[in-house]
Amino acid sequence: MTTYRAPTRDLRFVIEELIGLERLAGLADLEAVTPELLEAVLAEAGRLADEVWAPLNVTGDQQGCSLTDGAVALPEGFADAYRAFVEGGWNGINAPPEHGGQGLPAVVASATQEMWHGANMALALAPMLSAGATTLLQRHGDASLRERFLGKLVSGEWTGTMDLSEPQAGSDLGQVACRAVPDGDAYRLHGEKIYITWGEHEAAENIIHLVLARTPDAPAGHRGISLFLVPKYLVEADGSLGARNDVHCTALEDKLGIHGSPTCTIAYGDREGAVGYLVGEAHRGLKYMFTMMNEARHKVGLQGVGVAERAYQQAVAFARERIQGRRPGGEAAVPILHHPDVRRMLMTMRAQTEAMRALALLAAAEMDVAEHSPDETARAAAQRRVDLLTPVVKAVATDQAVETASLGIQVHGGMGYVEELGVPQLLRDVRIAPIYEGTNGIQAQDFTLRKVLKDGGETLEGVLAEADGVVEALRADSALAGLGDGLAEALAALRGSTQRLLRDGADDALVPLTAATPYLAQAGLVLGGWLMGRAALVARQQGDAGSGDTAFYTAKLHTARFYMRHVLPRAHGYTPAIRGGSDELEAIDDEHW
Amino acid sequence: MTTYRAPTRDLRFVIEELIGLERLAGLADLEAVTPELLEAVLAEAGRLADEVWAPLNVTGDQQGCSLTDGAVALPEGFADAYRAFVEGGWNGINAPPEHGGQGLPAVVASATQEMWHGANMALALAPMLSAGATTLLQRHGDASLRERFLGKLVSGEWTGTMDLSEPQAGSDLGQVACRAVPDGDAYRLHGEKIYITWGEHEAAENIIHLVLARTPDAPAGHRGISLFLVPKYLVEADGSLGARNDVHCTALEDKLGIHGSPTCTIAYGDREGAVGYLVGEAHRGLKYMFTMMNEARHKVGLQGVGVAERAYQQAVAFARERIQGRRPGGEAAVPILHHPDVRRMLMTMRAQTEAMRALALLAAAEMDVAEHSPDETARAAAQRRVDLLTPVVKAVATDQAVETASLGIQVHGGMGYVEELGVPQLLRDVRIAPIYEGTNGIQAQDFTLRKVLKDGGETLEGVLAEADGVVEALRADSALAGLGDGLAEALAALRGSTQRLLRDGADDALVPLTAATPYLAQAGLVLGGWLMGRAALVARQQGDAGSGDTAFYTAKLHTARFYMRHVLPRAHGYTPAIRGGSDELEAIDDEHW
Repeated sequence: MTTYRAPTRDLRFVIEELIGLERLAGLADLEAVTPELLEAVLAEAGRLADEVWAPLNVTGDQQGCSLTDGAVALPEGFADAYRAFVEGGWNGINAPPEHGGQGLPAVVASATQEMWHGANMALALAPMLSAGATTLLQRHGDASLRERFLGKLVSGEWTGTMDLSEPQAGSDLGQVACRAVPDGDAYRLHGEKIYITWGEHEAAENIIHLVLARTPDAPAGHRGISLFLVPKYLVEADGSLGARNDVHCTALEDKLGIHGSPTCTIAYGDREGAVGYLVGEAHRGLKYMFTMMNEARHKVGLQGVGVAERAYQQAVAFARERIQGRRPGGEAAVPILHHPDVRRMLMTMRAQTEAMRALALLAAAEMDVAEHSPDETARAAAQRRVDLLTPVVKAVATDQAVETASLGIQVHGGMGYVEELGVPQLLRDVRIAPIYEGTNGIQAQDFTLRKVLKDGGETLEGVLAEADGVVEALRADSALAGLGDGLAEALAALRGSTQRLLRDGADDALVPLTAATPYLAQAGLVLGGWLMGRAALVARQQGDAGSGDTAFYTAKLHTARFYMRHVLPRAHGYTPAIRGGSDELEAIDDEHW
Repeated sequence: MTTYRAPTRDLRFVIEELIGLERLAGLADLEAVTPELLEAVLAEAGRLADEVWAPLNVTGDQQGCSLTDGAVALPEGFADAYRAFVEGGWNGINAPPEHGGQGLPAVVASATQEMWHGANMALALAPMLSAGATTLLQRHGDASLRERFLGKLVSGEWTGTMDLSEPQAGSDLGQVACRAVPDGDAYRLHGEKIYITWGEHEAAENIIHLVLARTPDAPAGHRGISLFLVPKYLVEADGSLGARNDVHCTALEDKLGIHGSPTCTIAYGDREGAVGYLVGEAHRGLKYMFTMMNEARHKVGLQGVGVAERAYQQAVAFARERIQGRRPGGEAAVPILHHPDVRRMLMTMRAQTEAMRALALLAAAEMDVAEHSPDETARAAAQRRVDLLTPVVKAVATDQAVETASLGIQVHGGMGYVEELGVPQLLRDVRIAPIYEGTNGIQAQDFTLRKVLKDGGETLEGVLAEADGVVEALRADSALAGLGDGLAEALAALRGSTQRLLRDGADDALVPLTAATPYLAQAGLVLGGWLMGRAALVARQQGDAGSGDTAFYTAKLHTARFYMRHVLPRAHGYTPAIRGGSDELEAIDDEHW
């Protein structure tokens, strides 16, 4: 009942037909992606996801991880499944060949990452965190560090962690207190980090921790934080593993979900101090961290899409099998898939997931252009879009994934509440996604202040102008004109919100801060509507072209219609909150909350 | 960190000031409720809830229940806490004195029930289910059954269960297969029931199961189901306990939450057959069940309010203590309570909870009138309102409670995801509430078809006419005019939706079935807006009257403002879904889901 099938056909639809492989043509240093290559890569990844990773999802939840004498035991099968992933070359799918990667575009890598998360989110966190560490090292590490550590991080033979939080420093990293004292050409680290995902395990030979800490001369606050590479085992000049470093897991969190992912408290320097190497320049650690944060946030959004897809598949499978109640005017009991309200729930799950998949993959395609276009202007423009879309993908895809997982429970009725079928696990697992890598409230603030208001709304308006084109095309087709009208109204609402924030936000910082979350939610719905509108256009063309896959395109068309009628209009529900002030939030005394 | 304080002041505000004690004046057979009595009752219940029940909430979650040789072990302290509740007379608070009850109004009983659920939802399920069994017996049992069983059910010395579901019969009870064979003046039952809340335990001397089953001559489907009373221990003529009946717990569900509440599979008649007594007439079991379903559904709504209140309190307590980040223009880190987006989350939790509390207690006050008014017309009118409001209270309060519990996690950030502080438990616990006692989809169908369309929208319009009065009063006060405008717009949207369903629903049953959930959600927001509007009016009057409690009323006023700006406008987001058709839901082939 907890089967998962990687949605390769849907992923190809988005990459080939919504985004278009032609966007990737001419990008330097990227493997040229043909439809055949794309299909082969997704099919191969899908096989590993479906057959090896997905069946371990419930095992991981039930067994969890345990800590004994500093060693973490993973759920059965996790280490082997991770190694199969490494051996398949999936860890380095998007890394440059000179570092041992496959050199495939981010948009293709993202499609496979959605699958890993859908198949087994707890396990997929290992490579997700490694990727952050790898990117930091690649961009900011000196040649000697890259030489010693990068290859095995890219291959996945070693995993990486991101060590940011401390008990007093969560969303506010300026309060980091971990110390790093110079010792020869290295440093000795002392301090404690919490919430370290895959911070300790034995599925890989070594673990490379990327750690925020302060040198003795560091100024207070954000500007005094440096980034250090701290390996679990020291690495000799010849690449062989040396002594165990003074880095130890002292506790595992008992979490709501992702039980198969060890969330560690890590003690640095309980004894002689943990040997660490400065990455880049001192005092620039937070800056480095933020340069790779976009990628990590984007991956969390993909995680939301992957888990939501699994919840949808599971709910559909149940709804086909479960016989209960009659249709209006019918005599016999029917599968609940035939009840309008169940269809409404399933369609809500499906429509949200398809919209966010499209947005996440579009953002990945922009990453490819931003990194590999030969044209500097094109690179810069694409980077601005990546910056704009990342908080939307992170926050909206994860909020919708929580809703989708909860709807999945609802479709199952009473059986959705018992753990037996693996249904509640998806809600428990994905509930972390709106929190980590920057809470969704922080994403909303980032989107509103830094991504929209800072450039006067210009980048956003560029995207909305494309959406205007979709409105026009929809209106030009009498069967789709209603969708165009709905999208046009939603676009007008979002533009009105933006204008209001541009006008009043400059004078009163509380205005955009109060409006940020509803504004981001509105933007996410509208951007989803833009891409669902495009999907409707593609589906109509393919239908007219007499494609052999009529039912697939019909379903896409109806999903877009449903989105426009049931999902997108929620955007209007946020308008008064965005246009209102912050008075009623500010006026209550502390003691009267 | 998991403290709970029964919100006695807020409950009194709703009962005394929003509803008004004068509504209860002159109701026959009810204890006259003065402000002093109300305050004393709520304070006394609050003490038990805060000091005895609430501290066991996390214990119950962590320890859960276990089954050994048919006996269920409860979490530590649960049996004693239940007995303290029985000894306090809380179980029979609303039952007539002639059955050993306190004879207090349902509205007062409901206020205490919110507290039990807020303090310890898993434990509160015991009396909640008992109440259903008690009501059935009281209304439909013959004198001999009432004589033998009613007194100890009212006092709570014995608990009761509701045995409806079987593996193939959940939402569709027409498929019940449990058999009841005549045997002298009793019956012998054979069959299996699932999801029986508090189906076995030893906190009470006896357990009285109310069981749906079929007699040998019964017609198929809904019309062939009878109701039986099946005690765990047979009861002798003198009231003493006799032999153990052939009723056994064979399994406990492993659930997402409410771990302290044993959810049992119950086997009837594994050996000689379980002795059961027919309640009322044969073949009328489902009808009887539905007559008491309103009360049970209303209680589930209260459960949502109780847990949401606890989530709010917990989040506020955390937000006061957690220092992280700065205010715009500020230098020092502040408690996160001072960040606009955190205030927005807390206010969303608070506003939704207050609106649903008001609606649930208003419905309870209508129950009092429906049962106790000397005027038959008034009784009938009140009963129509109870019928209308019950599915709204059940579904909207529980959906909002799930959202509120999830927001509570979000306010806590990473600490919201670890089980240590007891935060995720509230989401895990309350997630069942939209499912049991009729899924929220079934509530929506009931509301739309039977409560609105069936009487041409008349009862609903009666309530909305009162809301028009609130709009007028708000508009007459320049400080509140904006609230009146927002409420007026939302009322217009709801009326438009109702007109549309009345117009098109008659011809096409799929129209109201597709629209039911968004229509109910819209109605819930608007009815909440009506009562929050009233709260704003009361708060202004009290403020003007120079009440000694200015800060309390100021907070109420701002909560109402927030509701009108941030919560109520979501109602508009549902309009296109309600007005749309069902085409896009119907058109997809089974294999393309």
